[in-house]
Amino acid sequence: MSTLHFGQQTEKLLYWLGEFGKDANGGISRLLYKPEWVEAQKALEQYMQQIGLIVQYDDVGNLFGRLEGTKFRDETILTGSHVDSVKNGGLYDGQFGIIAGIIALQYLKKEYGQPLRNIEVVSMAEEEGSRFPYVFWGVKNILGIAKREEVETMVDFEGIPFIEAMGKAGFRFRAEGSAVRKDLKAFLEVHVEQGGVLEAERKSVGIVEHIVGQRRFTIEITGEANHAGTTPMGYRKDAIYAASRIICAIMDITKSYGDPLVATVGKVEIEPNIVNVVPGKALFTLDARHTQKDILVQFTEEATRKMREIAVEANVAINIDMWMDADPVPMDKGVVEIIKKQCEKNGQSYKMMHSGAGHDSQIMALFVPTAMLFVPSHKGISHSPLEYTDPHDLDEGVKALVGALYELAYK
Amino acid sequence: MSTLHFGQQTEKLLYWLGEFGKDANGGISRLLYKPEWVEAQKALEQYMQQIGLIVQYDDVGNLFGRLEGTKFRDETILTGSHVDSVKNGGLYDGQFGIIAGIIALQYLKKEYGQPLRNIEVVSMAEEEGSRFPYVFWGVKNILGIAKREEVETMVDFEGIPFIEAMGKAGFRFRAEGSAVRKDLKAFLEVHVEQGGVLEAERKSVGIVEHIVGQRRFTIEITGEANHAGTTPMGYRKDAIYAASRIICAIMDITKSYGDPLVATVGKVEIEPNIVNVVPGKALFTLDARHTQKDILVQFTEEATRKMREIAVEANVAINIDMWMDADPVPMDKGVVEIIKKQCEKNGQSYKMMHSGAGHDSQIMALFVPTAMLFVPSHKGISHSPLEYTDPHDLDEGVKALVGALYELAYK
Repeated sequence: MSTLHFGQQTEKLLYWLGEFGKDANGGISRLLYKPEWVEAQKALEQYMQQIGLIVQYDDVGNLFGRLEGTKFRDETILTGSHVDSVKNGGLYDGQFGIIAGIIALQYLKKEYGQPLRNIEVVSMAEEEGSRFPYVFWGVKNILGIAKREEVETMVDFEGIPFIEAMGKAGFRFRAEGSAVRKDLKAFLEVHVEQGGVLEAERKSVGIVEHIVGQRRFTIEITGEANHAGTTPMGYRKDAIYAASRIICAIMDITKSYGDPLVATVGKVEIEPNIVNVVPGKALFTLDARHTQKDILVQFTEEATRKMREIAVEANVAINIDMWMDADPVPMDKGVVEIIKKQCEKNGQSYKMMHSGAGHDSQIMALFVPTAMLFVPSHKGISHSPLEYTDPHDLDEGVKALVGALYELAYK
Repeated sequence: MSTLHFGQQTEKLLYWLGEFGKDANGGISRLLYKPEWVEAQKALEQYMQQIGLIVQYDDVGNLFGRLEGTKFRDETILTGSHVDSVKNGGLYDGQFGIIAGIIALQYLKKEYGQPLRNIEVVSMAEEEGSRFPYVFWGVKNILGIAKREEVETMVDFEGIPFIEAMGKAGFRFRAEGSAVRKDLKAFLEVHVEQGGVLEAERKSVGIVEHIVGQRRFTIEITGEANHAGTTPMGYRKDAIYAASRIICAIMDITKSYGDPLVATVGKVEIEPNIVNVVPGKALFTLDARHTQKDILVQFTEEATRKMREIAVEANVAINIDMWMDADPVPMDKGVVEIIKKQCEKNGQSYKMMHSGAGHDSQIMALFVPTAMLFVPSHKGISHSPLEYTDPHDLDEGVKALVGALYELAYK
């Protein structure tokens, strides 16, 4: 397959699909069930039909294109990603996984005819949570684990109820009696890395072994708001000074653990936030991620102890609230091995790595043998109109996918 | 004078004056030229007349009550403070200096009759800058240094022009030809400390020797916004981590200088301020104050060097903008000495100190021998409905003022 050239075809289709929800200032805003979302799914439906796939939607709007198997008709190899975007996102996040799947199926059909097992490409309804405060709506419906009561009272930022938005787009809650798909034998998601590691290491393909676990905290420090001029240093209970000491300590501990641990203080807000008043309150968030649960727990416990210690020294009150605790998700070793072998066979430059971001695959992996393929994100930029992946790397990603699908469905 | 009891009388008058601009939730909002400000000045005018003072307004609305001198008729000892408040301020800031002056003049007149020099109490129009972005409007007009062009295009938060507000209240710009007062031989301002030092040291009276100089900065740190999950620690240019290191370093340096240096990081804002994004920008303010200019300069230069050093280490860009540079203002040694002797004579518990906050006196002192008297602020609280000073301390403050005015005007 060394003579394949998927890169340019992929880029062309990314631009084509990117017309649906294109922002005036560049980028894409294609939120769940919005008219541009409906148009994108319809355009994909037509395209899939044109290349000879059997197309169908499920109740909630996940779109599937199938290349039928000749032998194992109740076994399906699934690939794809999500069709929704963040507000003013880029051309690659989500889209690329769908386009990669379409191109792979088109190529496999043309080159090898019908597979032994079904291969399907899926354009999943939603992953980002950018319109409603709910993520993984698409994949959770495929697996039958989305619950009606979780969304039926939700409204978007314009006050439109979830049910109304879904109805207008032509969809409905998943029928109670409809069977959950039992035919999925593997899921393979191609995605942009959303980080800068592959580019920095000059690798075209990343093979994901784990999706990280995440713990998120909100930390509130309460000192005493005081006049900046009339309060001597020794009289102060300065919330931002305490917060700064804590942030420095967290970063020191994080570095002492080394990769793949990451810890981020992304949000900081202080009160009263006035030039000449010693801050009485400081609130900040901590987002910690690791591929191994025991190390993530150990780190967050150590960080928590240190935070309390500094709070006592700084004479401030501290409240530490953990509001997210998601376990790491390992990818399927068998599928990972198949991808790896294909990359080696193709002479591709790949890297075994983890995903620091969340993906549909982390839900799918709970029920179906799952793996992910990454391609580089230029400068690590994601969720931005500036997302970019070189066509050469797109090519390498699709090539790896083609090889893996062939192994999984034709043998 | 050990048998005097000014405390209860003072508290009563503070509550009376506090009715003008009283907020529903407690506290006072009495902004320049608002109806409640006009009513307060009129009430004070009447009260001053009732106790036998000769009352007059200047062009802009500063109100003076005069006890005429018998011998040095072109020499005036002035006392008082500002009648305006911040939004939802307390009963003591500004008001107390006026009430203390009225009570002192009433007592002196009754006890000792006419002085040799004139004594006047002034209720100054404005000091806080809470309605228009202009401070010291009152005192600057008394001294003839307020400029028409500085305010004539200003509007308040409701869009009302300064000139219109002034006109409606019955006042106008200071007449070009009107002579600046050359008769002021001393100014003595009584004020609440707005800090917690006197209370902590159990002193009733503070005698101010210096008003601090202030330097204010805005520091902007530019790193790189990155995905919290996909960006390994070694790839980051984390703006809040750099800012935290800098804040800790500033506080360490500040402590190494010791009192009376104070440094405050009062305002912090980061971008994009999202839980799962490494902050690409951090902006914070630094407010530094000291009674000696050379030390203030030395400190801010040292802090600036350290900030740049950390920025280099942390691989972020830094921009340091100094937008305020006000020199310290010493109080008049002669007047300070007179107050001190009176306190000693009265057996009062006093503390020689500096003012960490700005006051009308810092402007007055540039032209007139000036000194300030502080009384304790309970818990250091100021600019709040919770401002409180014990009547015993109010009593001590007025007592010290009476003694000093007697020395200055009757001898």
